[in-house]
Order: sequence, then C-alpha cells, then structure tokens
Amino acid sequence: MGLLLKLILILLKLLGLKNKSIMITSEFELIKRYFTKKNRQTKLGIGDDAAIIQIQKNHELVISSDMLVEGIHFIKNTNPSHLGWKSLAVNLSDISAMGAQPKWATLSISLPKVDPIWLKKFSQGFFKCAKKFNIDLIGGDTTKGPLSISITIMGEIKKNKSLLRSGAQIGDDIWVTGELGNASMGLACLQRKLKLSPTLKTKCIKSLQTPVPKVFFGLTLPRYAKSCIDVSDGLIQDLTHITKSSKVGATLFIEKIPCNAAIKTSKKYHYALNGGDDYELLFTAPKKYSSHIQKISKKTKIITTRIGVITNQPSISILDRHGKLVSFKNKGYDHFA
Amino acid sequence: MGLLLKLILILLKLLGLKNKSIMITSEFELIKRYFTKKNRQTKLGIGDDAAIIQIQKNHELVISSDMLVEGIHFIKNTNPSHLGWKSLAVNLSDISAMGAQPKWATLSISLPKVDPIWLKKFSQGFFKCAKKFNIDLIGGDTTKGPLSISITIMGEIKKNKSLLRSGAQIGDDIWVTGELGNASMGLACLQRKLKLSPTLKTKCIKSLQTPVPKVFFGLTLPRYAKSCIDVSDGLIQDLTHITKSSKVGATLFIEKIPCNAAIKTSKKYHYALNGGDDYELLFTAPKKYSSHIQKISKKTKIITTRIGVITNQPSISILDRHGKLVSFKNKGYDHFA
Repeated sequence: MGLLLKLILILLKLLGLKNKSIMITSEFELIKRYFTKKNRQTKLGIGDDAAIIQIQKNHELVISSDMLVEGIHFIKNTNPSHLGWKSLAVNLSDISAMGAQPKWATLSISLPKVDPIWLKKFSQGFFKCAKKFNIDLIGGDTTKGPLSISITIMGEIKKNKSLLRSGAQIGDDIWVTGELGNASMGLACLQRKLKLSPTLKTKCIKSLQTPVPKVFFGLTLPRYAKSCIDVSDGLIQDLTHITKSSKVGATLFIEKIPCNAAIKTSKKYHYALNGGDDYELLFTAPKKYSSHIQKISKKTKIITTRIGVITNQPSISILDRHGKLVSFKNKGYDHFA
Repeated sequence: MGLLLKLILILLKLLGLKNKSIMITSEFELIKRYFTKKNRQTKLGIGDDAAIIQIQKNHELVISSDMLVEGIHFIKNTNPSHLGWKSLAVNLSDISAMGAQPKWATLSISLPKVDPIWLKKFSQGFFKCAKKFNIDLIGGDTTKGPLSISITIMGEIKKNKSLLRSGAQIGDDIWVTGELGNASMGLACLQRKLKLSPTLKTKCIKSLQTPVPKVFFGLTLPRYAKSCIDVSDGLIQDLTHITKSSKVGATLFIEKIPCNAAIKTSKKYHYALNGGDDYELLFTAPKKYSSHIQKISKKTKIITTRIGVITNQPSISILDRHGKLVSFKNKGYDHFA
C-alpha cells in the first residue's frame, strides 16, 4: 500500500470515516489494487478480455463453480477475511473430491459499495487460501449489487483418473476425512440455538468460518478410491449422491462416524448426519486398500475413518453398536427447501 | 415437458397463479429440470463435484467471467428469455475478442424464489444462444438470493494465436464491427430519456436486450488482426484499453464511426463513443490486410468499418471531416463511478 493511501486511511480512521466508501471509484482501479497478484502457472492473467491457461500433456481440465450470497451462505457482517478464505476453500473442496490438482480461479463479486477496508481484508483472506494451495486468480468481474461472491475453480488431472460419484462398488469401504457436524454446530452457536463449552464453540465456529479443504489428501485418492464427493450438504445427502449415481446402497455404523464429544454424549447425531458446510471428503475404496488409506492419513495428518460399507440394498441404513437399525432423517442442506 | 406438468400449468394460469413459486422446491430438481441438456463436446457435464473437459492438442484454454445483477445490468422485470440470451451472449463476446472458439460455460444464478415460468423462459433464452454458438453448459450453482447471474465461459484457441489488447502497432487501421450506440439508445428509450421513431426504437431495444456476439467473425481475426477487444463499456473506454496496453495512441474519424441515422443527424455521438453494451469487436490490423478484412465482412455478413488509425501519440484524438479536432469525454460505463 502506498504511503499516501496509508496516511489518508489513518486520517479517515481518526475522523471515524474508515468504513465509508472512499477514493477508489473505478472498477479497473479496484481490480488492480485488490485482486491482481503475480501468477505462477498462468499464461495470461487478469487484464485482457479473457485469461489463457495451458493444460499439461495427457491431462484434462476439471471445473466447478460455487456462489455465496449474503444472508444465505454467510450472515451479514461476516469477517471479510474469513469470507475471502471460505469462498475459495469451498470451491477447492469440489476439485479435491475429483482427486484433481486445483490451479486456477476466477472471482466475480458484487458489492453494495466500494469499502477499501472490507476489500483489503476480503482479498487478504482470499489470497491467504490461494497461496496455501497454490492457486492463481486469473479473472473475474466486479460490480455494484447485493453482496455475493461467485467463483469458478479449475484444476488438472491425468486423463481418465478423476474420481466420480458413480464409481462406488458393492463391498467398498466408506471413508470420511476429519470430523463431521462441527460447522453446523458452529452456526447453531452463532444463531444462539446451541450452547457449547468455550473450547468446542471456538473450534466449531472456526470450522464454519475457515474450513480447510482436503486438497493434498484428495490428490492421493485416485490410486485407491473408487468414488468420492465432498461433504458440503450433510453426510447423508452427499452419500445419497454416491449411492444413487453408483446404483448401490450403503450401511453406516453410527458409532464410527467421526464427530466431537458433544455430539456423541448428547446423541445429537443430526449435526453429523445432516449438518452442512463440513468440506470433508467422503469416498469409497476396496477393502484391500485399507492399510494404504491409513498410511496416507498418517502422512497427511488428516484423520480418516471407515464409517461403513457399500451394499447391494436400494438405500442407506445406519446401525448402532448392537447392529440395530437407527432411524434418521435423509435431509441435508437445500437452499430452496 | 410432461403432460401432467403442462396440465398443472394451464390450471394455474386459469387460476391466475402462474407466477407463484410452485412445485419444484429442491435445488437438485431445479438444476435437472431446467439446466441439464445433452452436451456435445464435454467429457463430464452437470451432476458430479466438477465437470471434465479435454483440450485439443496444441491448443490452449481461454477463460472469462461476467456477472449480471438486477438493477445494475438489467432492469427489474426484464423478459427472462432475453436475460438468458444476453447473460451468455456478453460472455461469448469476450472469448470472441480473443479470436477463440467458445465451447463451455458454467452458470451460477441466485434467485429470490423458484418461479417455474421465469426459469423456463430464462433457460430457453440461455439455451437458444448456447445452441446457436454451440456451447455446452457444464456446471454451475443455484441458490436463493437477489437475482444475479454469474457465468464463466471457456474456449479454445491454437497455442499463441490469441488476440490481446497489447498487440496494436503504430500504423494499424482501427476497425469495428456493426453499429455503435444502439444499445445505450435503447436503454435511454426504456428510461424515457430519449424519443426515437418506432422502427429505430425497436432496433435499439433489441440491441440492448439480445445482443449478438460476433463469434464467427472473431474466429477469423487472428490471421489478420494485431489486437482486439469487445466494445462493452463504450468505444473510447475500450479503445483506451488497447492504446494503454499497446503503449500507442489513436486517431478516430468521427464521420466513419458506424452508427444509426438519429445519432448522425442529431450529432449525439456520445451514444456511439461512450454508450455501453454494444458487444461489437474493436480491432487493429496492418493496412495490407484491409481487403482481407472486407472479404471476411462480406462472407460473415457482419458490417465492418475502418474508423481510425493507431498513432505514436500518447492519447486518443477524434477528427471531423475537415481534419479538425472534435472535443469528447473519455468516459465509459463504470459500475462504481
């Protein structure tokens, strides 16, 4: 940041004007100031009618888009740095679920006003995530409008190696990374619908606000897994996508589902089964790869738990530790439900 | 459309309920019903965590994103079919300005409610444009929120053949396709700031609502042109992008600028110079290719006019037919200005 801008910002802060829409009025200036960083793996980035990228030989391109809207995906006055991180992280999660290497992103953002403080924090959060996972921001759009963020993420994978939802086979183990339900518990806390211990509350809100996509873990999966999805709408809903696409069923063991102590002791399993925003990887793999998966888990320091098995039944069943059926709702997050 | 759905729609129409949010409540159903079409050039389309595309040998990928927000880019109650067409068309225009072949799009849309009539018309408009220019819709997102449409478009071009803004050379002719200023005159008519004859009014509003991107024309340009941009923010602003990127200047001949008779007779050149939403191609080419460009113009039936020349001056000048300088404002469309 230039010295002059710094001085003006300090002055405005002293005058209590720091959040006013100031100085940067042009869309082009805005893009240049906050969203143009040096790219590392892009032929042509921001600044022309389009960006240009080159795909490695024998590779194909994997693409996904996600939109985050204020009041729907995040509450008003969400910390802009967290929002910047999360906007990119949730997209990375989709590419990881294909077993691919995410590399490029476009960011379209509509803003009610040009607020330099907000924009600076947002772009810091965004680029913190981009740097961690080696992503180039190659294009996008900025416009006036209600706060909404739309990202398209692109990645590479060797031809025919992508992990689809449709590849699960009867007898496959069902695995999931991390812990489920923390983010939805975090949301319930913020909405004052749930009380948790201070430590757990902090952990859950962190899961909600700055989820960590399982990029490096996802890259190892094509060697062993048969199908994969990221858990964004709730375990049951996302597992249903796998079972429907693969034309199989599934049995889960409730006590194996990785979740925090508060869920286990209070039996509030609905957070782990139907809560959204987990951004963990749910995948299936033949039994013979069990030890390989445990090794990856150790190496990447990502907890990975076998939670069930793919069956020839037409639906999903959940069993308790005595082998008795557990009743549950098959209802995940749906914006229009 | 199923017979049952048709009957229900007729019934609702009779009951005056045709615009109510009905029946389709799930995000997945919505995507399936309105946005899933058979793809022609895509390995994996909508329905998994990400789409997969393959790039031809010796080609690179060209990517652009645009966001359209209600109240900013289009007025409330815009015909949804026109909006569907335009959302895709403005993105195609960016890929054409690179000289590339657009092939794939992702569409993220936030909607205040699920209105089947609106969605049907929007998707019809979108796919009409997609069909005309052979575009596969390969992914995206649907969510609740203020009406906003975000598209990422991807195209292919042979390696190192893209037309950049930075390629203009001193002595190049400056060319533009079509007529400039019609769309901004159309908008002024709708806003009741301008009166036009009924025929011209219809033409201008059509230019505004359903612009036709110059896809086939753009594909021929890399053989002759040195630089290109699409005119979306106004001729002067977009030409400035070329002159600044290429570190050159430009002289334009006001009487050569292609525009409708109302602009010429009333001398309201600001519509042609600064009006947005034209989606014509502005390009520069060495003089020796003049006849080639005129041949392409005839073949593609796209009027193409030589409007000026690239100079070694530091800025843009406009001359009248006597060679006298015309004063003008360098001000195009900017969402935050």
